Amino acid sequence: MTIQKELADTGTKAREAARKLACLSTDGKNNALRKLAQNLSEHATDILDANRADYDDAKANGMNDAMLDRLLLTEERIRGIAADILSVVALPDPVGEIFGMRTMPNGLQIGKKRVPIGVIAAIYESRPNVTVDIASLCLKSGNAVILRGGKETVRSNMALTKIIKESIASEGVPADAVQLIENTSHVLVDELLKMRGAIDMVIPRGGAGLIKFVRDHAAMPVVAGGIGVCHTYVDAAADLKKAVAIVYNAKVQRPTVCNALDTVLVHKDIVETYLPAAAAELNKAGVELRCDERAIGIIGGISGLNVKPAVEEDWGKEFLALIAAVRVVDSLDDALSHIERYGSGHSEAIITEDYSAAMRFLNEVDAAAVYVNASTRFTDGAQFGLGAELGISTQKMHARGPLGLNEITSYKWVIYGSGQVRP
Amino acid sequence: MTIQKELADTGTKAREAARKLACLSTDGKNNALRKLAQNLSEHATDILDANRADYDDAKANGMNDAMLDRLLLTEERIRGIAADILSVVALPDPVGEIFGMRTMPNGLQIGKKRVPIGVIAAIYESRPNVTVDIASLCLKSGNAVILRGGKETVRSNMALTKIIKESIASEGVPADAVQLIENTSHVLVDELLKMRGAIDMVIPRGGAGLIKFVRDHAAMPVVAGGIGVCHTYVDAAADLKKAVAIVYNAKVQRPTVCNALDTVLVHKDIVETYLPAAAAELNKAGVELRCDERAIGIIGGISGLNVKPAVEEDWGKEFLALIAAVRVVDSLDDALSHIERYGSGHSEAIITEDYSAAMRFLNEVDAAAVYVNASTRFTDGAQFGLGAELGISTQKMHARGPLGLNEITSYKWVIYGSGQVRP
Repeated sequence: MTIQKELADTGTKAREAARKLACLSTDGKNNALRKLAQNLSEHATDILDANRADYDDAKANGMNDAMLDRLLLTEERIRGIAADILSVVALPDPVGEIFGMRTMPNGLQIGKKRVPIGVIAAIYESRPNVTVDIASLCLKSGNAVILRGGKETVRSNMALTKIIKESIASEGVPADAVQLIENTSHVLVDELLKMRGAIDMVIPRGGAGLIKFVRDHAAMPVVAGGIGVCHTYVDAAADLKKAVAIVYNAKVQRPTVCNALDTVLVHKDIVETYLPAAAAELNKAGVELRCDERAIGIIGGISGLNVKPAVEEDWGKEFLALIAAVRVVDSLDDALSHIERYGSGHSEAIITEDYSAAMRFLNEVDAAAVYVNASTRFTDGAQFGLGAELGISTQKMHARGPLGLNEITSYKWVIYGSGQVRP
Repeated sequence: MTIQKELADTGTKAREAARKLACLSTDGKNNALRKLAQNLSEHATDILDANRADYDDAKANGMNDAMLDRLLLTEERIRGIAADILSVVALPDPVGEIFGMRTMPNGLQIGKKRVPIGVIAAIYESRPNVTVDIASLCLKSGNAVILRGGKETVRSNMALTKIIKESIASEGVPADAVQLIENTSHVLVDELLKMRGAIDMVIPRGGAGLIKFVRDHAAMPVVAGGIGVCHTYVDAAADLKKAVAIVYNAKVQRPTVCNALDTVLVHKDIVETYLPAAAAELNKAGVELRCDERAIGIIGGISGLNVKPAVEEDWGKEFLALIAAVRVVDSLDDALSHIERYGSGHSEAIITEDYSAAMRFLNEVDAAAVYVNASTRFTDGAQFGLGAELGISTQKMHARGPLGLNEITSYKWVIYGSGQVRP
């Protein structure tokens, strides 16, 4: 009961803040963000102290090194976060954009005006920089936000949120525009997801379990995604040099993220030339290859490679590690079928010099981002020209792909009349 | 168990049909729609027979005349439905539109391509023409649709769906693109709303009870709205002649629909001139006025008017009848507060010649459609230039206002590379 009352109070404050945020000038929002960037640097020690406590606890609780590294803040990383805020400042304000305006035959001028969504809840895991990313994108787009981070970073998030609130309030933006739920009990998430009237949209950002939980329990619209089972199909007509470089980049450049390659599909006609070359390159980065029978037949005997037989679970698996599944396919159709069956609708690529194969792949693959001759690692708000992102949606409703500022807005129809009535 | 199996089967067939629909040419879809328009006219007697059975049952069960009229089909109405299909044929095909394409500094060409949503479920009440409207809009936008109409029109819907399926199949479009759930037990709706994997989006079209039920129970995204508590605010600086005509039109032209006027807010400075004139005009159409104390003070004594004191429930009520609530307000701010408190976010209008008042109203009212000096009756897909509509959304996610063809599509990012890897 107390928890519900507290959350209801959080919701009410968020709604009030949202009303004010919707009317803020671009300068007002940018000044608050600049102040925040400045204060983060000036109060870096407070943040680092809180983060150190989170880090020590997580380490004592046996968190693995990769996760510990994601949790860790340093002075340099805080400078990076501050720089990211200034990039958000530099983005155009989405709110108030008028688009699609036209004059109808009866003289009515009808168009759309971009407006904030209202109150957004973000439920996320691990990295503390996400707290600042989400807060600054919501503020810039005029949305109030209720943050619910992971329990491993609660002290870091509290330190960051304190600075966010003080910074924006000092520039006349309501402090309640950004609220952190500090109680990390799971019950809070359950209750939060029931608050349809108070929260207009929820963004879960994290693993498959979190996203499924939110989808199953949220009474309000969810924009989610992030699970990336990404394929790169090396076609019979691929430029093999490009294909080696792109597959290497997609797998190795940052293996722990959702747009990294999981499975390479190789056309049988070029597999004997291509696969040994690609495997040798991937091996330099220590990539483990989980191969179907035909692929093993080609590279299984090459000494020094880390090759294992693939099991059924390897197809459709998001490895988030230096592991790739490899399958030989007979045709573009087989590649398309494999992707349809095992893909998660995130990012898929074909490597080919065959125009018609490229166009078929672009048309027929059903995913948030479909590539010809490029690394799937480009699926990212900044790389797509949206600026920063709140996440990547793999759903078709509302927004698909990187969630930039426009993607967390709505619109209203505005109609300028001169006395028109409907006949 | 049988019901679940049947529904699962319906879902599987819809998904298969959706895959094929997504790849159909514009001509293929338009030919199927033209055939449907032709067959509806040719098989009008089958439809009329089925509709007569629905009508007689409904009448025997005590349905009121207004509802009976909505249920009734005639040869003329069928010709109207066929004409509506041809209007959908005339609309541009939304699928395949490329937009926002640009070349990034690294040479990647990145843009969006419009694609169907996939499988849409529509749950609706009463009017049988809705069956054909929804089917033709879904077909044109490449979406498969599962229809669940009201039990009062089930025979009409079955006759219409039979013709739809035969017509589209004869033009090479999968018959399963349009499926009707013929079992009108409520259990079917419960089960349907659980089918997240099979159905990508659900559109409830009907009264507040239906929409709330779907929002509460749907496991998939919902696009809903339609509840219209619409205000027209007659400002101190209104052109009174326009204000009389617009309020009359908004209330009287078609009182049973969601964009009809429910409450008139009148500024105190002009109420003594305006209200008697407006009331006299509205009285010609037999409109009952439910007035606050101040309004009664002005028109309560005029003989022949149908004036009653308003009760609290009249504010925020969707009358769907020749009834309007009337309140006198002291200022634009009071009008804005009233609308914020009682509005349903559908359509709101200000009548004024004051530029700043008009701009404040447009900026500050949070609704799907906000008007200056025009009747709220224009909130409609055809009137807004979208062609036909599936309904009107009052939510902010995905689409707001009339749901035309574009509003039942998604997009994918398409990326044309030449070997780019991420640095």
